[in-house]
Amino acid sequence: MNIQRPAAKQPLPPHAKLAFKGVMFDVYQWEQEGFDGTTMVFEKIKRPDTVVVLAVTPEKKILTATQEQPGKPPFTGLLGGRVDEGEAPLEAAKRELLEESGYASEDWELLHAYQPITKIDWAIFVFIARNVKKVADQTLDSGEKIELKLTSFDELVELSLHDPTFAEKDVVDLILRALLEPQKMQELRDKILG
Amino acid sequence: MNIQRPAAKQPLPPHAKLAFKGVMFDVYQWEQEGFDGTTMVFEKIKRPDTVVVLAVTPEKKILTATQEQPGKPPFTGLLGGRVDEGEAPLEAAKRELLEESGYASEDWELLHAYQPITKIDWAIFVFIARNVKKVADQTLDSGEKIELKLTSFDELVELSLHDPTFAEKDVVDLILRALLEPQKMQELRDKILG
Repeated sequence: MNIQRPAAKQPLPPHAKLAFKGVMFDVYQWEQEGFDGTTMVFEKIKRPDTVVVLAVTPEKKILTATQEQPGKPPFTGLLGGRVDEGEAPLEAAKRELLEESGYASEDWELLHAYQPITKIDWAIFVFIARNVKKVADQTLDSGEKIELKLTSFDELVELSLHDPTFAEKDVVDLILRALLEPQKMQELRDKILG
Repeated sequence: MNIQRPAAKQPLPPHAKLAFKGVMFDVYQWEQEGFDGTTMVFEKIKRPDTVVVLAVTPEKKILTATQEQPGKPPFTGLLGGRVDEGEAPLEAAKRELLEESGYASEDWELLHAYQPITKIDWAIFVFIARNVKKVADQTLDSGEKIELKLTSFDELVELSLHDPTFAEKDVVDLILRALLEPQKMQELRDKILG
């Protein structure tokens, strides 16, 4: 699978300088010429890309998770996490699925990729993993608590409509738009469930 | 109008330390205990809050804008901008509306306020300004080019559905959800147009 990183709306220019290197967030700055010829300092954050996985069992159930992270109330979401330095998005998706659920798949497809915030260099890749099988135990890090659930497609639609903690805003947007057009909804359901 | 800042999903703890102060982005760090008792460094960004204004003329047209910013392709959006240090969100909304359009209103209502990103301390306030009147010229800064348009409510719905550059994702979400329930759409239309 040849995956292109989605383009930023306002890309970091090549002459941007790293002003701060954090644990997760790096800050870049550059001199930007305005429309009247004066210059100002522009700033943009760079953070690790993330992957989201719609993992589907042979019984057409989607793996969702109730998650807890330190200092944050429990929330519902899909599996996924950060892309490590030098890692390809698909590899990160396979690794996160395995770590967070113990499931693996041999049938992967990219559903959607985008950069949500203009001022942050950050791409999100949403994958479909079909026919997932349990091959190992969960191996969580100390900043995660994840309780897995098997969710039908209709329940995923319900989560998108009515669970304010449901974390995958990109998937919610796809589902809301599909709900407005029966044809689109059928296509999305067939694409995800396979 | 008494406006509460919406709560963060994962608030900055009081002992978080400012690790970097940028032009727009500040980086905070703190030691966080994990679920297994070990500690790790957590990081969160703080940036200025922003306001978005649904400005409605006496003829029930909404002010939208085609905007350009250096290094970014033109995009469609509503008026608005950053809340200055020490400024109340409503004051920022009045100031941005006046600067970007030359319009003013005496009938303001908060439609929606939220923090979109867990790892960023950043609230967005969406205001309705009804019965706006032209009282001054546009006064743009050197990082803005703004061309105003008068848009009907139905055209705003069209923008939300079909203009991928339409920048107000929060407003898009409200409109998509309203499109699914005629009663809700009527309420949203009445609330915005007044």
